[in-house]
Amino acid sequence: METFSSKLLQAAVEEFSRLPGIGKKTALRLVLHLLKQDAAAVSRFSESIERLRREVVYCKQCFNISEKDICEICRSPRRDTTTICVVEDLRDIIAIENTGQYHGLYHILGGVISPIEGVGPNDLHVGALLERIANDSTNLKEIILALSTTMEGDTTNFYLYRKIQPMGVNISVIARGIAIGNEIEYADEVTLGRSILNRTPYENLITK
Amino acid sequence: METFSSKLLQAAVEEFSRLPGIGKKTALRLVLHLLKQDAAAVSRFSESIERLRREVVYCKQCFNISEKDICEICRSPRRDTTTICVVEDLRDIIAIENTGQYHGLYHILGGVISPIEGVGPNDLHVGALLERIANDSTNLKEIILALSTTMEGDTTNFYLYRKIQPMGVNISVIARGIAIGNEIEYADEVTLGRSILNRTPYENLITK
Repeated sequence: METFSSKLLQAAVEEFSRLPGIGKKTALRLVLHLLKQDAAAVSRFSESIERLRREVVYCKQCFNISEKDICEICRSPRRDTTTICVVEDLRDIIAIENTGQYHGLYHILGGVISPIEGVGPNDLHVGALLERIANDSTNLKEIILALSTTMEGDTTNFYLYRKIQPMGVNISVIARGIAIGNEIEYADEVTLGRSILNRTPYENLITK
Repeated sequence: METFSSKLLQAAVEEFSRLPGIGKKTALRLVLHLLKQDAAAVSRFSESIERLRREVVYCKQCFNISEKDICEICRSPRRDTTTICVVEDLRDIIAIENTGQYHGLYHILGGVISPIEGVGPNDLHVGALLERIANDSTNLKEIILALSTTMEGDTTNFYLYRKIQPMGVNISVIARGIAIGNEIEYADEVTLGRSILNRTPYENLITK
């Protein structure tokens, strides 16, 4: 996939194949698709990326991406400011927003603590979170930790718990259990064990 | 995947998810990747697409993509102008060029005849091919048909054979047989049968 009769084609394919998970063949397919679209559609495509990169900033409070210093969620008068949900990245916010079950604020850590990959608390937005909680501790009621249910996620949960707990704010962790639609016999033992330990009153199931 | 706190992010994700084979989740992943790059890299990306779409044309002779009226391959003094290889699209040219085994010219049909999908000869660059052959029949020695080895490809081969044969130019078809590196026992019967019928002298194997 190295010979192209057009340098412009080659340049575009190379740019696309720099994207994660996009090989040369896929890049070529995407570029040839764009080539078949009308010029206005292609301009819309390239401008959307250009504008995003130029105009988007990170929210100074929660590190969500934003068009202003403070993001739409942090600014919204309809959000419950007594709760902060701590997540790893932006995609988690999108996923949680789409459930429609959460109306509080967020805080993006930017990852989880991982000694193997050399990621410590100082590489994450942990300091900013602790400062944010300290500055707002009279208003804040709950910090929800919504990190990956992996060893790194658990390490991070424990680290944050130790730091936040002395500030007198409630700390919770999202429920672990059997995914909805799954059969019990196929669940792994650890999850199944946890789901029995953390069983909830039946009424919770029918009223929520 | 419908709620984004940023309209610019939403716009960029929507543009990416219009590309073939790119869903909303992949689009978001690609856009977030670009957002992490420096502004110059993002400009390079978007400009490469914009320029390609604006400056690229199709070669008037072979329908390859080109930066001039006639493409680099058609213009090259080093190509053998006595042979035309007929292919379905640009990707086939790239694949054949990468073999380093062909030095003639090309002609892109733009597809194959497919009654089921409503594609007839008039939807393809067949007329232009026949005209090209007629105008150059004293110089031309061979037309190589390098179309898909499918029913549609065979239909198209037959159609072209009937049209070109009266013009007194040799017509050949790329060899069908066992792919190199494959074991005989796993080859399908039709291919294996064809590979026996079209067997070649052993010397061909060691001298090429």
